[in-house]
Amino acid sequence: MMANPPRFAVVLSGCGVYDGSEIHEAVSLLLAIDEHGCSYQCFAPNTWQARTMDHFTGESTAIAGDADNRNVLAESARIARGNILDLREFNADDFDAIIFPGGFGAALNLSDFALKGPECEVNEEVKRAIEDSYKAKIVIGAMCIAPVVIARVLGKHKVEVTIGNDKDMAKGIAKMGAKHQMCQVDEVCVDEDNRVVTTPAYMLAKSIGQVYHGALALVDEILELI
Amino acid sequence: MMANPPRFAVVLSGCGVYDGSEIHEAVSLLLAIDEHGCSYQCFAPNTWQARTMDHFTGESTAIAGDADNRNVLAESARIARGNILDLREFNADDFDAIIFPGGFGAALNLSDFALKGPECEVNEEVKRAIEDSYKAKIVIGAMCIAPVVIARVLGKHKVEVTIGNDKDMAKGIAKMGAKHQMCQVDEVCVDEDNRVVTTPAYMLAKSIGQVYHGALALVDEILELI
Repeated sequence: MMANPPRFAVVLSGCGVYDGSEIHEAVSLLLAIDEHGCSYQCFAPNTWQARTMDHFTGESTAIAGDADNRNVLAESARIARGNILDLREFNADDFDAIIFPGGFGAALNLSDFALKGPECEVNEEVKRAIEDSYKAKIVIGAMCIAPVVIARVLGKHKVEVTIGNDKDMAKGIAKMGAKHQMCQVDEVCVDEDNRVVTTPAYMLAKSIGQVYHGALALVDEILELI
Repeated sequence: MMANPPRFAVVLSGCGVYDGSEIHEAVSLLLAIDEHGCSYQCFAPNTWQARTMDHFTGESTAIAGDADNRNVLAESARIARGNILDLREFNADDFDAIIFPGGFGAALNLSDFALKGPECEVNEEVKRAIEDSYKAKIVIGAMCIAPVVIARVLGKHKVEVTIGNDKDMAKGIAKMGAKHQMCQVDEVCVDEDNRVVTTPAYMLAKSIGQVYHGALALVDEILELI
């Protein structure tokens, strides 16, 4: 056990791959943090989902404005077993790293990348959390599709990220001012200067085991930087 | 890699500790199965949840019959990334083991144990799946609170299970004809004669790591029996 184990903030975007956080990625990340002897606190923005999907039929059941649409914070709380804070309460000085798991929620709720691509807007609290973390020089991590959010906010610093090996996505990332590095599923893209680490997870993973080993490698690299 | 790796059926009860499957337990189990080189298929009964809870506020937002209540199969599909079957399609001959992760969904949706205790009724498809699995002699596993469902269906065979060290729960299990074995979080209760294995998970676990190691131990014991 470390005397003062590093503290991780984990930012969720709902609960389910098609409208929120990808659950295997989020849980694998929490497990990887715990297995490294570190602690975590989950956060999510208190905002409405862009849409709610039936994950069995694959159909959209609600969109923003509908009475039966779902709230990002309330759904994210399912992954956190209720132990979650509104992202408004995030203070970068309290943490050594902040990590964003993937899932369409990153491109629908944390940003509108799924609709607008490189011209996307990022949720105000998400933007503040990333900018505050950058200024405080804590490590910023992201998995799967979530690196597009980091690229959008920190493109001006020419951050280097990966979303795997998709060439169209790589072009989109370049348009936001960021650099894209092709990576395999078990690799981690490390931007030492900007203290940003990213890994492809389910952009490339064929199994939950690959996602978990990617999460372990991500946390390893973060601990190297800390 | 094994030539014919064992096949696991995993029965979910929704998506979230307070009204469905406990997400860390379900994902830890899928990961433990994958890490052992085995395959899994998720199932859930196509029925309505007994209630839907806001996991951030801890308040009930809908009960059975309300228009905004949720469906067990549709919510379970979130954990399975859409790759899930209606429990009606479960055929015990296709699998080497069937496992039930915990969460209140086991005591609310798979059965009504949370309301009626030892006199509870078990969902018809869940009962059929357990009875068919028993007859086919495939291994039956359960985590956390889910062993009460096994006890209710297989109490007539005097199955031995654990739900940790809660004395009231142990008495409830005895009333259903089953035997209760006190277990620590890292232990697995193995009933060799009935081919039933159970582990306490979040009945006792203080961290997601403890849950994962319990799931690994559970799968180890199942592979021993297979």
